[in-house]
Amino acid sequence: MIKIGIVGYGNLGKGVEAAVWNNSDMKLVAVFTRRDPSSLKIKTPDAKALSYYDIEKYKDEIDVIINCGGSATDLPETTPYIAQYFNVIDSFDTHARIPEHFANVNSNAKAANKTAIISVGWDPGMFSVNRLYMNAILPNGKDYTFWGKGVSQGHSDAIRRIEGVIDAKQYTVPVEKAMAAVRNGESPDFTTREKHTRECYVVVEDGADKARIENEIKTMPNYFADYDTTVNFISMEEFKANHSGIPHGGNVIRNGFTGFDKTTKHTIEYSLKLESNPEFTGSVIASYARAAYKLNASGDFGCKTVFDIAPSMLIDADGDYIRAHLL
Amino acid sequence: MIKIGIVGYGNLGKGVEAAVWNNSDMKLVAVFTRRDPSSLKIKTPDAKALSYYDIEKYKDEIDVIINCGGSATDLPETTPYIAQYFNVIDSFDTHARIPEHFANVNSNAKAANKTAIISVGWDPGMFSVNRLYMNAILPNGKDYTFWGKGVSQGHSDAIRRIEGVIDAKQYTVPVEKAMAAVRNGESPDFTTREKHTRECYVVVEDGADKARIENEIKTMPNYFADYDTTVNFISMEEFKANHSGIPHGGNVIRNGFTGFDKTTKHTIEYSLKLESNPEFTGSVIASYARAAYKLNASGDFGCKTVFDIAPSMLIDADGDYIRAHLL
Repeated sequence: MIKIGIVGYGNLGKGVEAAVWNNSDMKLVAVFTRRDPSSLKIKTPDAKALSYYDIEKYKDEIDVIINCGGSATDLPETTPYIAQYFNVIDSFDTHARIPEHFANVNSNAKAANKTAIISVGWDPGMFSVNRLYMNAILPNGKDYTFWGKGVSQGHSDAIRRIEGVIDAKQYTVPVEKAMAAVRNGESPDFTTREKHTRECYVVVEDGADKARIENEIKTMPNYFADYDTTVNFISMEEFKANHSGIPHGGNVIRNGFTGFDKTTKHTIEYSLKLESNPEFTGSVIASYARAAYKLNASGDFGCKTVFDIAPSMLIDADGDYIRAHLL
Repeated sequence: MIKIGIVGYGNLGKGVEAAVWNNSDMKLVAVFTRRDPSSLKIKTPDAKALSYYDIEKYKDEIDVIINCGGSATDLPETTPYIAQYFNVIDSFDTHARIPEHFANVNSNAKAANKTAIISVGWDPGMFSVNRLYMNAILPNGKDYTFWGKGVSQGHSDAIRRIEGVIDAKQYTVPVEKAMAAVRNGESPDFTTREKHTRECYVVVEDGADKARIENEIKTMPNYFADYDTTVNFISMEEFKANHSGIPHGGNVIRNGFTGFDKTTKHTIEYSLKLESNPEFTGSVIASYARAAYKLNASGDFGCKTVFDIAPSMLIDADGDYIRAHLL
């Protein structure tokens, strides 16, 4: 049994917990939190709630730590720290800072003979792996990533910060016409507006100025101004009934050309349709925790990304089995 | 430059040649044939046509041999032989014999400090890799592979062997209704007939008995009897105009369930739409030839499959680049 520890018990931490529960070769030992551990109600029988500040005391009791903190401030600090004591996985997704984060985690993991895998999930993660396979196979081509239909937590948060808003959910929606063009083998240059629209469902206080709120949303720089945005004001009842889930998904599509004259066309597409973003992300992460465990056992130390991990490392089955059943 | 040799100059050999041409870090050195080498018209400038029976003389001039022989009789004999002298890739696809072939190639490659990768292409190959990722991420679920619309060489050959047939092309076509059900998250058990249909385009001799030929096709055991098959008799002109290509493609779809009660549904789909099966297969193989070269340089010897190869090995770019651009 691979002994797993989780740091952080938000949506992602709970998604990872469910994934560990569904993998028969893994066992959740503890959840570490910076809050009061006694405030956590952990679903897994026998798993402990412990203080994050004591984590290094458990270095001989846990094989892999799954760090479910936030990319903005938590992970750049905590993953390198944890890598001094444990094999560790995170889902770091601040793209511009990946080289720096990789270097920090790599030096600590190498010094401690630990194995770390950063930026695991579906984007970055499975979408990245697919972009790499597609680019390696079809070097002459162009790829596109579409996101959605799905909930953007960041955009939903941005709406909730507007005065008069009680709750809000924002769905990123790919433009069907754009996806159809790419699937049809065309390789256009899209503007931001041509690729995705944004649909907002907003619950406001009694008597709130809806026109002002709608305008504040639609003109918000970076988040909404570059998109065609629709704003729907709904009741709390409707919000709870129809918008309580966290679905997501998306598509990576590459058109490439082969042949001596580069005129033979091929289209590769990878798509995800997810009822729960954190449960799926947690499931991806659990399989990479297995890989970190196996790699560490084989003496392969330091920081990795999904690009460095052979598919066989991810599954609870040996080479004979996978060659017979999946090849 | 990675120096490539190709064994066999049929459709696949030519597809590999075009792929090597389109990869700037590779160079085709020679094509080896069991026919008279002077009969080959090789497209790549400066590449030599040589006798397969002399291949071991070139062991210091070529980095990776791509073996484009047939699975039925060629590859089981030639890949283990070649692995004594070269890093080697093949596209062995006789599923039941993979364990035996793997063992034979593995022992010879290990003894010679060479790296071999067998069963490379799209199925087995990219479809297999995707089945593995899907199964690792969503262990509770069920996956489906659909093939087509595309040309089955084996079925086309079977029709051509019927008396009175001049030429024929058989397309395997997935049943849209079955794919739609799976994409919709259902996990049915399909019969063979429910998943694919077979469309045949047949050119016959003047005065041939079409009713007999159609009946022989539709009742042919293993090839057609278990499918809904349509037979279209066409002229040689129409055959050449509309059925001269070798397109193919297909989809791997897995529905899986997460959460403590396994009720949250996710669908992962990987699909290919290929104008030329041999050019795409050749492109996949070229990227794995690069991996064999890199792995051999790092001292990783023996036989591998696509499951054992980290994605980063496939691309002509280093870790810093792929983390910055594809993650």
